[in-house]
Amino acid sequence: MPELRKDIITREWVIVAKERARRPHEFKRQQLVRPELLRHDPRCPFCPGNEAMTPPEVMAYRGHGSAADSEGWRVRVTANKFAALNQKAEICREDYHIYDRMQAAGAHEVVIETPLHNVSPARMDVRDLEHVIWAYIDRYNSLKQDPRIRYILIFRNHGELAGCSLAHPHSQIVATPVIPQKMFNKVRGLAQYREYREKCAYCDILSVELELGERLVSQNGSFVVLCPFASRSPFETWIVPRAHTASFARMNRFEVMELAEALKETLMRLDRCLDDPPYNYQLITAPIDGGRYDDFHWYLEILPRLTTPAGLEMGTSIYINVTPPEDAAKYLREALEGQPAAASPPGQPSGLEAEAAR
Amino acid sequence: MPELRKDIITREWVIVAKERARRPHEFKRQQLVRPELLRHDPRCPFCPGNEAMTPPEVMAYRGHGSAADSEGWRVRVTANKFAALNQKAEICREDYHIYDRMQAAGAHEVVIETPLHNVSPARMDVRDLEHVIWAYIDRYNSLKQDPRIRYILIFRNHGELAGCSLAHPHSQIVATPVIPQKMFNKVRGLAQYREYREKCAYCDILSVELELGERLVSQNGSFVVLCPFASRSPFETWIVPRAHTASFARMNRFEVMELAEALKETLMRLDRCLDDPPYNYQLITAPIDGGRYDDFHWYLEILPRLTTPAGLEMGTSIYINVTPPEDAAKYLREALEGQPAAASPPGQPSGLEAEAAR
Repeated sequence: MPELRKDIITREWVIVAKERARRPHEFKRQQLVRPELLRHDPRCPFCPGNEAMTPPEVMAYRGHGSAADSEGWRVRVTANKFAALNQKAEICREDYHIYDRMQAAGAHEVVIETPLHNVSPARMDVRDLEHVIWAYIDRYNSLKQDPRIRYILIFRNHGELAGCSLAHPHSQIVATPVIPQKMFNKVRGLAQYREYREKCAYCDILSVELELGERLVSQNGSFVVLCPFASRSPFETWIVPRAHTASFARMNRFEVMELAEALKETLMRLDRCLDDPPYNYQLITAPIDGGRYDDFHWYLEILPRLTTPAGLEMGTSIYINVTPPEDAAKYLREALEGQPAAASPPGQPSGLEAEAAR
Repeated sequence: MPELRKDIITREWVIVAKERARRPHEFKRQQLVRPELLRHDPRCPFCPGNEAMTPPEVMAYRGHGSAADSEGWRVRVTANKFAALNQKAEICREDYHIYDRMQAAGAHEVVIETPLHNVSPARMDVRDLEHVIWAYIDRYNSLKQDPRIRYILIFRNHGELAGCSLAHPHSQIVATPVIPQKMFNKVRGLAQYREYREKCAYCDILSVELELGERLVSQNGSFVVLCPFASRSPFETWIVPRAHTASFARMNRFEVMELAEALKETLMRLDRCLDDPPYNYQLITAPIDGGRYDDFHWYLEILPRLTTPAGLEMGTSIYINVTPPEDAAKYLREALEGQPAAASPPGQPSGLEAEAAR
């Protein structure tokens, strides 16, 4: 019989349809035909040599001596050419009859993750992925200084069905002058949980999941990878830090390394199970409006886009999930059995050195 | 410059991207190739003659003398063959470690709107659409008697990109034993608005929109059709009753007639503008858990599915809308200019008579 499950933080319900449970190969058939990508595409605005096709870079990790907006970078961050938020706009909240509106002040940036057109994070050298995460942290810390900004979301769209329009590996950063309602709900849910149980809900989730094991995918010293109890979509996967920390930007060098390992390995597992599925990943972290968010526990959420949300999801935000998270976790655990470890061998040279020495 | 707009009830923000505003023909190009449908498809489980391919009907409007689960119906309602909620399950909320789960007790039904395989509501005789709405009301009133049920959502998925898997025109009814969090948020938002302004937010929206006119699509005696100020998607359209009423099921015969007219006409406008776009429509109505919801104001929401929600929407539920609602409303207003009226000529025979005489 199908089961209703509640997200204990957001209080959103999910219907887990066990009877019509779908296995990984049933999602593969739905995929669109994908063309083979080249290492370099001369028409791609994110490929080296085409730096003039993007807005000027706001940051890059570059080899010594290479000039801004030229080749020689490892990770490059620019404003989004079609920015949804404006770097120069003033905050000016305006009443318009009964409504509330304001200029979309903020920032909308693109993190070009690698010079290689065809190497997504699942296939990237793990040390290169570390640099991507450092770029997230550097941009986050820089944007945080802007007094107009109250929330920063870092996310990645992979595949056309996940809203990705350019194949070259990239993530996006959106900094908004408002706290999204969804984050308010999360903050409120965490506070209510803490008021009742005097503990952090995500810390509790970690200890329950580590004890039960059935929704566990993998773990390392700093992170636990799991399919959440109330997964909204088949193969939804969270990478949760063991340490209770409000902001992902407080990671130390070792934690960044372990996040890169966990992220690469998890994306590889999804890739093996589902044959390069479309997905979004989001870094869910505390608001930065100056409030205290000690209750917050950041995590990275990966949402494969395998089914189409329809009227029920639009009308109620109750999602129907056709793969129970216990099944998904089992498939993901088994995906790399007998495979070499995801991390690079120790001491492997990482190519270009990041500009920022840490 | 792009603009942030807030839904005054849910407090969700939307980014209206005026600069890259997209016009109707730019969405048409994205459509998939659609095969021409026949009037009758012998393999379709919803076509007359194939009644045995569905679960037994729970209700039908039939010509006199025709037997249940045989031909001769005008509107037919059955359980969903792959029901996400179970008609027979007990309510039994269960603590599972820190989590909350229960059997998915409730109902999941399919409203087969017409015997004709290829006649969607935009092209249906308006009197046939009235019968569909009466079927919604009848099923709603019947399911409401079930003490397990706390919310009923009636919705329609149109087109593959909107999650529709069977082409034969049909709607769905989902009755849940929990109030969706999204409805709680709406109820809370309405109450907060009323506390502050001592009025209903939707009544206020109607009077502002009727005064301004720029987001107005059409109106009749009982309903106002508009593109909401904080539209989440291009061409989002609401059909809002002028009368402040919590439940759509309290409509009288005249209001049902006018809703059918407004709905058919609005779907025709969308069809003309966007060439049969995929969409979901949902009847947003008050919960039925026994509480008082006098503050609620029901409406029908049509969400065309023209763009793909990506990481930003998933992470924050802030939607980027690339067609300002003022533009969308203008396109929709102009869509039927010089066209014959949508309603049937008075006195046109409606074919089969509904079984339930009113």
